[in-house]
Parts: sequence; C-alpha cells; structure tokens
Amino acid sequence: MKQSQLFTKTRKEISKDEVSVNAQLLTRAGYIYKEMAGVYSYLPLGLRVIKKIENIIREEMNSIGGIEMKTSILQNKEIWEKSGRWDDNIVDNWFKTELKNGAKIGLSFTNEEAHSNILKQYVSSYKDLPIYPYDFKEIFRNEVRSKSGILRGREFYWKALYSFSRNEAEHNDFYEKAKVAYQKIYNRVGIGHLTYLTFASGSTFSKFSHEFQTLTEAGEDIIYVDEKKKMAVNKEVYTDEVLQSLELDKKELVEKKAVEVGNIFTLGTKFSEPFGLKYKNEKGEEQRILMGSYGIGLSRLMGTIVEVNHDDKGMIWPESVAPFKYHLISLGKNEEAEEIYNKLQEKGEEVLFDDRELSAGEKFAEADLIGIPYRIVISEKSLQAGGVELKKRNEEKGEIIEVQKLF
Amino acid sequence: MKQSQLFTKTRKEISKDEVSVNAQLLTRAGYIYKEMAGVYSYLPLGLRVIKKIENIIREEMNSIGGIEMKTSILQNKEIWEKSGRWDDNIVDNWFKTELKNGAKIGLSFTNEEAHSNILKQYVSSYKDLPIYPYDFKEIFRNEVRSKSGILRGREFYWKALYSFSRNEAEHNDFYEKAKVAYQKIYNRVGIGHLTYLTFASGSTFSKFSHEFQTLTEAGEDIIYVDEKKKMAVNKEVYTDEVLQSLELDKKELVEKKAVEVGNIFTLGTKFSEPFGLKYKNEKGEEQRILMGSYGIGLSRLMGTIVEVNHDDKGMIWPESVAPFKYHLISLGKNEEAEEIYNKLQEKGEEVLFDDRELSAGEKFAEADLIGIPYRIVISEKSLQAGGVELKKRNEEKGEIIEVQKLF
Repeated sequence: MKQSQLFTKTRKEISKDEVSVNAQLLTRAGYIYKEMAGVYSYLPLGLRVIKKIENIIREEMNSIGGIEMKTSILQNKEIWEKSGRWDDNIVDNWFKTELKNGAKIGLSFTNEEAHSNILKQYVSSYKDLPIYPYDFKEIFRNEVRSKSGILRGREFYWKALYSFSRNEAEHNDFYEKAKVAYQKIYNRVGIGHLTYLTFASGSTFSKFSHEFQTLTEAGEDIIYVDEKKKMAVNKEVYTDEVLQSLELDKKELVEKKAVEVGNIFTLGTKFSEPFGLKYKNEKGEEQRILMGSYGIGLSRLMGTIVEVNHDDKGMIWPESVAPFKYHLISLGKNEEAEEIYNKLQEKGEEVLFDDRELSAGEKFAEADLIGIPYRIVISEKSLQAGGVELKKRNEEKGEIIEVQKLF
Repeated sequence: MKQSQLFTKTRKEISKDEVSVNAQLLTRAGYIYKEMAGVYSYLPLGLRVIKKIENIIREEMNSIGGIEMKTSILQNKEIWEKSGRWDDNIVDNWFKTELKNGAKIGLSFTNEEAHSNILKQYVSSYKDLPIYPYDFKEIFRNEVRSKSGILRGREFYWKALYSFSRNEAEHNDFYEKAKVAYQKIYNRVGIGHLTYLTFASGSTFSKFSHEFQTLTEAGEDIIYVDEKKKMAVNKEVYTDEVLQSLELDKKELVEKKAVEVGNIFTLGTKFSEPFGLKYKNEKGEEQRILMGSYGIGLSRLMGTIVEVNHDDKGMIWPESVAPFKYHLISLGKNEEAEEIYNKLQEKGEEVLFDDRELSAGEKFAEADLIGIPYRIVISEKSLQAGGVELKKRNEEKGEIIEVQKLF
C-alpha cells in the first residue's frame, strides 16, 4: 500500500486521558480510533494486525478439530434465563436493549449459552460427538471503568471455542490439545517467551482453570512464576496447599504482573444441564455432555503485543502480526522505489511504501512509531553506496544491500 | 470437510412461522439458526457462504481504491447528534443501550457518522483526498416486524463504503466506477442477469439515487424494467417526467417485484457540513468535501441468491459462493472415496465428503437440499460402470467419468 493512499496520519501527542501505553502508541500511529472509553474502531493498519492474529488463531483451532460458525450479537432473554445469567445481580456487566414490542434483549458478553442452545438442536447420539465449534465475534461488557486501552474493552473482538465431549477422558484429551494449541498461538504472535501457563481458580467441575499470562507491567493480575518449569500460579490460588499439589517450591517462585491473554476451563455439566444437552451412548443410555471453554481476546492480544514490544520511539511488531513486512521509504527516489515496490508485491510481500514528500527525519520517526519489522530506505546516498539500506526495527544499524538481494 | 464432523443436520420440516423461502431452505439445510425474528446465527455452512461473498466484495472495493477499516458497533450519542440522527423521531429503528454511568449509547444502524467523524481527524489538505474507506460489520435496525428471513434483519452483516472527494467531477468519476464494481459483484455471485440498475428517489444533492434490484417474487419493491436497456425505475419515482428525463418508453417497461441488493447515492455535504469536513485546495482556500455512500447487505445478498436459485428439492448455489465446490458421496465405498477426497483437497478444491452411514436416498436428498454445485457419487455400481458419477446440481442427469478425470 502506498502511504499517500493511507488516510491515517501519525501524531506526536494525543489526549492525556489515554493513559495506557498500548492505546497511546496505537492511537498516535493511526492503528485505532477511540470512540469512547473502552470502545475503539480499527483503522486500516490496526485491522491488518487483527486479521493476522485472527488467521493464526483460526489455523490453530482448525488443527485441533475446531469448526467455525458465527453466532449473533443480539441474544434473547429466554436463553440466558436457562443458565441463570440474565439476572443483573448475577452478571453485572450486561448491555441490554429492547425490541419495539418491549421485549428485553442482550448483547452477548460471552458465548456458552448461544453455543449450547444451537448444539441442542443437533446433538442426540454418541455419533454426533465430540464437536468443537468456535466463533470470532464482537463481545460487549459494560465495565464501570475502562482505562487500559484495548487490553480491557467494553466492546472487544474475541474468539471462543467450546468443546462438547462424551466423557471425561475425551474431554481431558481435547483440553490438553487446546493447551498446546494456545501455546503455539502465543509463540506465533511473538509473545510465547513471556507467556506462562498459569493455574487459577477452578469450579465445582475442576480444581483449577488455566490462564495464559503474559508478563508485563501493564497487567492487572499478580502471578507467581517458576521460570524453570515454565509455569505459574495466579495470586487467587497462591496457597501452600496449592503449591504442594502442583509440586512447586515457594523459593523458586517470583511475583510478577501479567495480563491474561487467554483462558481455558472445564465447564462440566454447568451448561449442558440447563440446556438439556444429552446423548445416547452405544447402549442407548442417556448421558450428559461435558463441556469446556477456550477463549482468547484478539484485541487484548494485540494490545499485549504492543505492551511488550515497543521502545521510546514506537512499536516493534513481530513479523507474523505486523501490518506489513517492509516499510519502503523513498527519499527523493520515488521512481526507483516504485520499481522495488512493484517487484516485492509481485513476490507476494506486503509493503507499505512511503511515497510522500516529507523530510527524512519525519519519515524515519513515523516508521519507528508504526513499527514495521523491516525498513528499506532508497536515497541518493544509498544508491551511491551500492543499493538500499535495510534495517530491522529492533536493531540500531542497517546495512547497504544490492537492490536485487531484496527479491 | 467430512460431513461426519459437520455438526449440523438437515431437517424436513421447520417451524411454520418461518415463512420466507430463503430462511426455510437455509434453516432446513443447516446454514443458519434463528435466534429471534430477524436475528440469525451463521452455522458453518452459512458462514462459508458469507465469507465467499465478503471476499468478492472486498476484491471489487479494493480494485476501485477502497481501503478497509472496522468501526465500532457501540456509538456515542454526541456523534449522532451532530447529524441530527440521534433523535428517535428522526430515526425510529435505533437500538440504544447505556453505560453504567447512565450515558446513552447506540448500536450502529449505518456508518456515515462513524466514518465522517474519523476522517475529520485526518483530512485537511487536497493531498489527503480522495479517499474511499469501507467496512464490513454487523448493523442493527429495530424493525417492527421481521418476516423475510435474512432479506431484512434486525441484525445483519453489511459492507459500507463512503467516498470523500474534492469536487463534483472527482465524485462523479468514482460514482461511475462504483456502479461498474457493483454490477461486477452481482455478476460474480451469480445474480447479475436478474439485477438491474434502478433509478430511485434522490435528495437535495442529486436527482436520483441508484439501487441494484434483483427480480424475485420475494422482493418488497416494485420496479419497472426495461429489459433491452438493462435498467429500471423504482415505483417511488415512476412518473412521466422521470421516464422522459431517463429517455425510457412506458411501453417498454414491465412491472416486477424485486429486492434491493445494493444502493449508491450522492451525499453531497449532508455529513461533511455538520462534521466540518473541509480541505484546503492548492491555493490555500477552504473547500467542503463531497461524500457518496455505497452499501451492500451481505446477508440480504445471500438470501437473494437463495430466493432466485432453488427448486423444490433445495438450494442451487452458484459456484463462486457455494460453501464447497464438490459434494462427494460415498455409498459404501468410504476407502475409495477418502482417496478422492484427499486428492481433491491436495489440488486445493473444497469438498464436503459425506462419509456417514445413511441410505443413498437420504444422502441424495440432503445433497439436493444443501445445494453444492457438483455431486460426485462413488458406489459399487459407479465403479463397475467405470468410475464415479459426476452430476451438476442444476442438471437432471449425471455422467460416469473415470476417477482420474476429477483431478
């Protein structure tokens, strides 16, 4: 894409009430636009990142048997009354609205009810199971405050998968696969080394739930990390008894701030009970379906990547989720640059081409803020030195390479 | 995909209150699930169709200079007060909700305000224009009744593009390009031959708006079609004066029912005025930006395709938007079928493989209902005849072809 056609512009300063690093940088660089606290629009650069993340998650969910659908945002009251979650005393962050006839409806704040209700129509025999439907959709939570940028939104983009299994062994088997798939996702988006499988509070159906926590000062959670074992415990279950059961030694644990970038937990029959989700086994006996929940907030994940990958000049995107791989900057050499741009695009590379009339200093400062992994500069100077300057965003010095080496 | 892994099932009958053909067929075949009147979830087959349509529209929008972003669903009151559309007396189909602090917010029912407000931050010079941002998003309209299936939803999936131009010539130039792109979209999704550029009522800024109307008895609009000129006039502007100005002859016009599958219109300064969208021209003089609007409902388009492509057995998808190209049906020959399935997939073909234990009659009836363009049947009989039976969904008879000819 030519930067002259990208309508967004970078800014040096933004409103002081935007306190989080992720929202500051993403807003200054033109990735997002704040509609109100906790609600952001995704501008062209931001949408490209979200789509990269979405594709990675989709691939990993498909690889463990996930099947994608898309449930509605508007949800009818009756479905949520079945699980007891319509009541504002039970769930205090609903957004509700109403139809013309006065019927109250809700904006989905999670997806267990929608999935359970749909599956109820289709599942009756052991042959119909297991199944692993998931969807990507906007989720709405009426938070009292919202000051963490896209780490905690009132409207946010979310992937939810639910597992519907015949028995505990089948459930556990998938649960372990999901753990591996989740870790792969964090590795692929470039934050795997900072992300810990973390034991958190469970429910009647399992002693623990599992969170994936990424270390960052921007996090709202406190976890205790065992670096060697690559695991952690959330403060909420940090007791001697729990540590003992997990064979963790208090002396090896370090207290850290972290952001929860995903969580998985066993639902047991919590939803299959009220929704009457049963199946007949080989002997014709009725059995309850066991469920599990596997969520990832894509916008939060994007914000976390920014929190852990930036310097004082701007963002530093991992290549896998960067809006473009190359930032091609022409300093008075638009014709030559255009040729490089076309050739890279023919090769299938994603390039942002800064073809505007601005000073070198302005272009470099913007490129650092936007944070595309590879910067290519073509100028009179670079051509005299033998080609173009190629520099990684996370390295200080670039090098001159022949133009042909780019392709 | 193996049909044994697709959790949806087809049904012979559905609730009688679903009166539209599109919703009946799509529900019976497991493409959509009705959450409430006018609100549907998209099941795996349905989502595949929506994504095909989305990709076609995206390609055509990009080809005329469109740039994709994603605006939020939750919208703050202040923005809509600027254009005067917050008032329920002006817009009577709002869904509104509120934040914890009591502030009223709305669910976007269209996108002019969101786009204008964002663009205001970035546009100041003639160098910044023209621009053509668009987004795909869920749109919410609180209709009093909703009985047309996915032709008219309370929640529906929509593409909106807005043009921001420097002057009338630039606006008109893009407007004509958009007309061509729209017609390409309808051609590509298989309804071009039934879709007419239709003159409809304009506004202060242009004598007419333009609709794309697809002929079907399911339509809510009445249009007058000139077959030879491939154009039509909406009943709302069907006057002698209008016909004369369009050089149409009343005797050549035929009255038809049609559904509006897209519309484009000139907004002039209707939104750039209240949002203060101006730019400085080459001489440093302030000028108003001229806008245009270009919308397509993807769910409505999907419903229209069903309305015009079905028979008494089920749907008949055009290949470009079909959930799969091939429906591979094994009659007791799963091993051989699996080999064909794998080879077709290696070739990059999309195949739904019916590997279930059901009778031939049941499988064929389901395949006809689901409506995938090519049916491949492998059975003892077909193998004895020399291969597999290949049949098009819209043809009565199939033919036996050698297995190798499939690849």
